[in-house]
Amino acid sequence: MNRTLPCLGILGGGQLARMLALSAAPLGVRSLVVDTEADACAGQVAELVVADWNDEAALATFARRVDVVTFDFENVPAAAAERLAGRVDVFPNPRALALAQDRLSEKTLFGECGLATPAFEPVDTRDDLRRAVSHIGLPAVLKTRRLGYDGKGQFRLKTEADVEAAWEALGDAASRVGLILEAFVPFDYEVSVVAVRGRDGEFRSWPLTRNWHVDGVLSLSLAPAPGCTDELETAARAHAKKIAEAMDYVGVFALELFVQGGRLLGNEMAPRVHNSGHWTIEGAHTSQFENHVRAVLGMPLGDTGVRGPSAMLNWIGEMPDPAPVLSAVDGHWHDYGKAPRSGRKVGHATICAPDAGSLRERLTVVGERLGRVAQVEPGILALG
Amino acid sequence: MNRTLPCLGILGGGQLARMLALSAAPLGVRSLVVDTEADACAGQVAELVVADWNDEAALATFARRVDVVTFDFENVPAAAAERLAGRVDVFPNPRALALAQDRLSEKTLFGECGLATPAFEPVDTRDDLRRAVSHIGLPAVLKTRRLGYDGKGQFRLKTEADVEAAWEALGDAASRVGLILEAFVPFDYEVSVVAVRGRDGEFRSWPLTRNWHVDGVLSLSLAPAPGCTDELETAARAHAKKIAEAMDYVGVFALELFVQGGRLLGNEMAPRVHNSGHWTIEGAHTSQFENHVRAVLGMPLGDTGVRGPSAMLNWIGEMPDPAPVLSAVDGHWHDYGKAPRSGRKVGHATICAPDAGSLRERLTVVGERLGRVAQVEPGILALG
Repeated sequence: MNRTLPCLGILGGGQLARMLALSAAPLGVRSLVVDTEADACAGQVAELVVADWNDEAALATFARRVDVVTFDFENVPAAAAERLAGRVDVFPNPRALALAQDRLSEKTLFGECGLATPAFEPVDTRDDLRRAVSHIGLPAVLKTRRLGYDGKGQFRLKTEADVEAAWEALGDAASRVGLILEAFVPFDYEVSVVAVRGRDGEFRSWPLTRNWHVDGVLSLSLAPAPGCTDELETAARAHAKKIAEAMDYVGVFALELFVQGGRLLGNEMAPRVHNSGHWTIEGAHTSQFENHVRAVLGMPLGDTGVRGPSAMLNWIGEMPDPAPVLSAVDGHWHDYGKAPRSGRKVGHATICAPDAGSLRERLTVVGERLGRVAQVEPGILALG
Repeated sequence: MNRTLPCLGILGGGQLARMLALSAAPLGVRSLVVDTEADACAGQVAELVVADWNDEAALATFARRVDVVTFDFENVPAAAAERLAGRVDVFPNPRALALAQDRLSEKTLFGECGLATPAFEPVDTRDDLRRAVSHIGLPAVLKTRRLGYDGKGQFRLKTEADVEAAWEALGDAASRVGLILEAFVPFDYEVSVVAVRGRDGEFRSWPLTRNWHVDGVLSLSLAPAPGCTDELETAARAHAKKIAEAMDYVGVFALELFVQGGRLLGNEMAPRVHNSGHWTIEGAHTSQFENHVRAVLGMPLGDTGVRGPSAMLNWIGEMPDPAPVLSAVDGHWHDYGKAPRSGRKVGHATICAPDAGSLRERLTVVGERLGRVAQVEPGILALG
């Protein structure tokens, strides 16, 4: 055809790449996905190249075929990102990616940007751990600095007696990915700011999202976060903006925050589209996926306003019966086309409504019809 | 992977197939598209098989790979549809497809279902044409019975002197696709009912859409149709339901109607998702594309309610500058990824709003910024 469409390169071919590709198409943007697995689910909706992250030749060919490179997961080897950045525009930039991959540098940056965090200390040895425990106190959480996600690579310490067990569990990882001890914060609730920054520095964010996790994995989100004051919302957005500017970040990211006594504490930053922003597909005027595509390609950012409140339910392990959601008013189904596997994110559903009361009603009905009352319950209480 | 996703087969790989495939993916449905052209734009988002409609072996292989077959255009040779129907479920059924392909049988069915139409008569010879003109009167329009679309294959007769010219223009087509003479109706405005019928006979329709054509091609749609009374809306939906039942139709279709002095006249029925339903992607709780996929696969139909009014602008020939729409509040861009070509539908945009007043404002701004004041003007007047 006598017209060249822009091509978005995506490293990683999971559900985030899949939803990015589905959002890119209406913008007239083609997607080319690289993954190590031939059955990566993004390959169902975009061209997939199967290659290892260390395969320099494959990545060079990939770079030649695309206009810009982005990521569907943050644990892309920094070396691979750097190599690509020498050949083609890469957003977010590899430095931002590396920074967000490391809990220590991430929390240090939060502090520099004026965002309080739970007390933390780096841990390289068993003695470091003992020292950190004495400084920070207990309870605390020992975490890997890098390559952790969804609660993996974490050990909670309640008493001094747990120090040995924590070192047994994670000490081996110290030399490989580093460790960090963080004070355990008895937070009131968790929120995230999902935001986008353009190539020209324009910043927009969606309303705060309130999140509930089960076993370290996101289970339920509500947006706009019920019960958040305007002050909290404004402060959270300002933190997100400052941090993004410090990293010269381009694209969508999520800043996860604890709320404790009306105060915000920085937990972590995900340098990519984020599970807590999935509700934006139907719940906002522009989704996080579309705005990420627009940002990295230098297109105008879209309006992040909402039509009303939304609830997002995550499906872990296997897909439930779709009928209750498909039959719900303004209910939306997202099956990632993945094989079922314990602990795997395989899909989600979003329920939208014109107001909190009707969202509460719809969520109640869907929870009952799905046999998932426990999953929807915190949302129903918060909307109450 | 150890899970088999349902596969939707689509005959024809244009923008309708592309938007069907994009809507199918979140439902966990894969799409397989057949088209005669290797650069069919649906091939950018789904697997594409290039084959001729007469290639029996290719269609047989296609049928084995899919769970159900549907169409992205109505001029699929009836023989191909029939052959496929012997191997796999085909929706809409080939009889409905053949019926809707023929203006004569279509209008005859409208009459049988109680929907008035402009006067019409079949025309096979020059003498038939003279006779029809004397019965129906002038002005009138001579049309091909089959294979016409977007105003193609039509000749308007204003005086007796035009009879010869009309026969010169279309007489050759009489033996091939048949001709029909229709009274020219000085209608007040045009509306369409976009509706869906499930495998189980459940019927749903979206609010009436008001349409404006330029040179026979849709230019602008507004939904819900401004100025339509509840009576008109109810009558239009009832006609659509009765016609769909008479055809045992499964899937989405559009019934195009003229409104003349508060009365409805049947113009034509498109047995597929339809350009006048594109606004449903963002403007309704479930889009026409998603509901078509749900219907043909036997899934529960989705809610056809709306969030507020929407306007759809068609892009013909080439894509305009996207910035004015991308920057609009609740503005949505649809680039079909096609090469520019005179008269070709290459994309559309939808502007949504919470109420008619703000839609009017947004449409005014977008029209001015695009330099397309004439295209948006009828909508602005109707929203007035």
